[in-house]
Amino acid sequence: MKLRDLGEDRLLNELLPRLSPGKAVVAGPGDDCALVETHDRGRLLVLKTDCVVEDVHFLPGTNALDVGWKAMMRPLSDFAATSAVPQYALVTLILSERIDVAWVKQLYQGLRRAANRFHVSIVGGETSSTPGPIAIPVSVIGFVERDRWVSRGGGKPGDDLFVTGQLGGALKRKHLRFIPRLMESRWLTKNFSIHAMMDLSDGLGADLPRLARASKVGFKIETESLPLSRGAKINDAISKGEDYELLFAVPRRESKRLQKKWSRKFPKLALTHIGSLTPQSARSLSAAAGNPQLRGGYVHFQQSS
Amino acid sequence: MKLRDLGEDRLLNELLPRLSPGKAVVAGPGDDCALVETHDRGRLLVLKTDCVVEDVHFLPGTNALDVGWKAMMRPLSDFAATSAVPQYALVTLILSERIDVAWVKQLYQGLRRAANRFHVSIVGGETSSTPGPIAIPVSVIGFVERDRWVSRGGGKPGDDLFVTGQLGGALKRKHLRFIPRLMESRWLTKNFSIHAMMDLSDGLGADLPRLARASKVGFKIETESLPLSRGAKINDAISKGEDYELLFAVPRRESKRLQKKWSRKFPKLALTHIGSLTPQSARSLSAAAGNPQLRGGYVHFQQSS
Repeated sequence: MKLRDLGEDRLLNELLPRLSPGKAVVAGPGDDCALVETHDRGRLLVLKTDCVVEDVHFLPGTNALDVGWKAMMRPLSDFAATSAVPQYALVTLILSERIDVAWVKQLYQGLRRAANRFHVSIVGGETSSTPGPIAIPVSVIGFVERDRWVSRGGGKPGDDLFVTGQLGGALKRKHLRFIPRLMESRWLTKNFSIHAMMDLSDGLGADLPRLARASKVGFKIETESLPLSRGAKINDAISKGEDYELLFAVPRRESKRLQKKWSRKFPKLALTHIGSLTPQSARSLSAAAGNPQLRGGYVHFQQSS
Repeated sequence: MKLRDLGEDRLLNELLPRLSPGKAVVAGPGDDCALVETHDRGRLLVLKTDCVVEDVHFLPGTNALDVGWKAMMRPLSDFAATSAVPQYALVTLILSERIDVAWVKQLYQGLRRAANRFHVSIVGGETSSTPGPIAIPVSVIGFVERDRWVSRGGGKPGDDLFVTGQLGGALKRKHLRFIPRLMESRWLTKNFSIHAMMDLSDGLGADLPRLARASKVGFKIETESLPLSRGAKINDAISKGEDYELLFAVPRRESKRLQKKWSRKFPKLALTHIGSLTPQSARSLSAAAGNPQLRGGYVHFQQSS
């Protein structure tokens, strides 16, 4: 069987159970970040690697600053999902020898700007020449307090579901210039009981079922309440990826206080109550059935059950 | 200017000074590993990323187990150079969709075997599809006691220079199956004052001048005393890379005790005294001048002064 017939998710599922992480690993392959024990009993070490590839994550000819920015911000968005603090980055540039040195310098400037924004130090670099498309793997290392890390797996039936920002319009331009919700995520775990959280990289229709599956719960979404980017339709918000907004679950009793405090703390960033978690059997996207526009999200949803 | 006209070393030299690592960074870009402060005052966090690329580090058709092994062992060899303990690895597979899933599974088995050998846990994985050559970036994270880390930069005039194993024969097969000298390196820093150390990845003729430059010293090598792999000539030992043996500098007063204890502790692995460090002006490869076979090493040597 060829790789194209299997798909990345299934390949990882086949490989990952064999990785047998050690005893010190609190959360490993399959979650947004890996979390491991250290000698510091109050903190966990947080590790994440991600890779942007030409023709997959950006088109040939994209501004090098934007490419560097995106390559750094993608793993930082996983830190936001975990409510962890990123500190150090290792960057590999897999480039063609025909690329202009000026382009590479711009690329590095994009990486550096993104890292600086969140006080991350790029401590290691490596370049490899290939005739293939550009690929930029970035590994980020940081920490999270033991009582503040969040995974996809802690959601409970009855929890309210929220998303930050607007959904569905990222592929026009935002996917190259997004700002990971690190500040917001840290504020959330400092002030509220966040049961489960993830960043939306593949679209709500693919990502929400992952959170539900990890939490062993169902979900109910009012698709009419989804916050839409300008020009986006409900279907875009469900099936289009690369929003890099936060999706999280909080106990219903905290929802009112959260909404009130949020609008004071982050007046420019929307926070929208989109639905709730339910007992496992009750997954549904309301209005999904019979609405062909929702099929993209609905198909993803079906795969998850 | 195109990348091919500049070369990797010069590109990194142009980019790295701009990385401005933070205050917590003890050693950063340019050394074998990056070392950073943590909340644990007795230990430093150690970070390294490396990448093997098809057609550069292995030929198309190479056994997948060997490719995975090499991809993991290369960054672990940098940990040996630093005398650090590797603990966690993040792996990215950049693969063509046309690759057989069976090949990918073998690749992972090679990565896993290599990691297991040194009790390293693979805690994160990521795959990306490209039509280009296979590339496998691996990031490794671990620690080193603050009083045991070694860099290239601590050598002193008068120090004796040693290498482990044999040199010059790696490209036939060893480069795919080498065992990083982690155990030996940890033993060395536990029992001796290792002033400077590195792993030999580009050949003695390229690597020794790097150690000398970082230590701001010169060196004197008796090329006749170089330990040669079966079938290798002196020139191979100087100019051929991928030996992944250790090169290190110790105070002369410790040399005798080192040689005696080494042969008892590691009876199957040669340790060879190949020369010494000198004041900065006195760099020389004895017998280099006039011996055309040494030019490869000699050219590297010239670049370094």
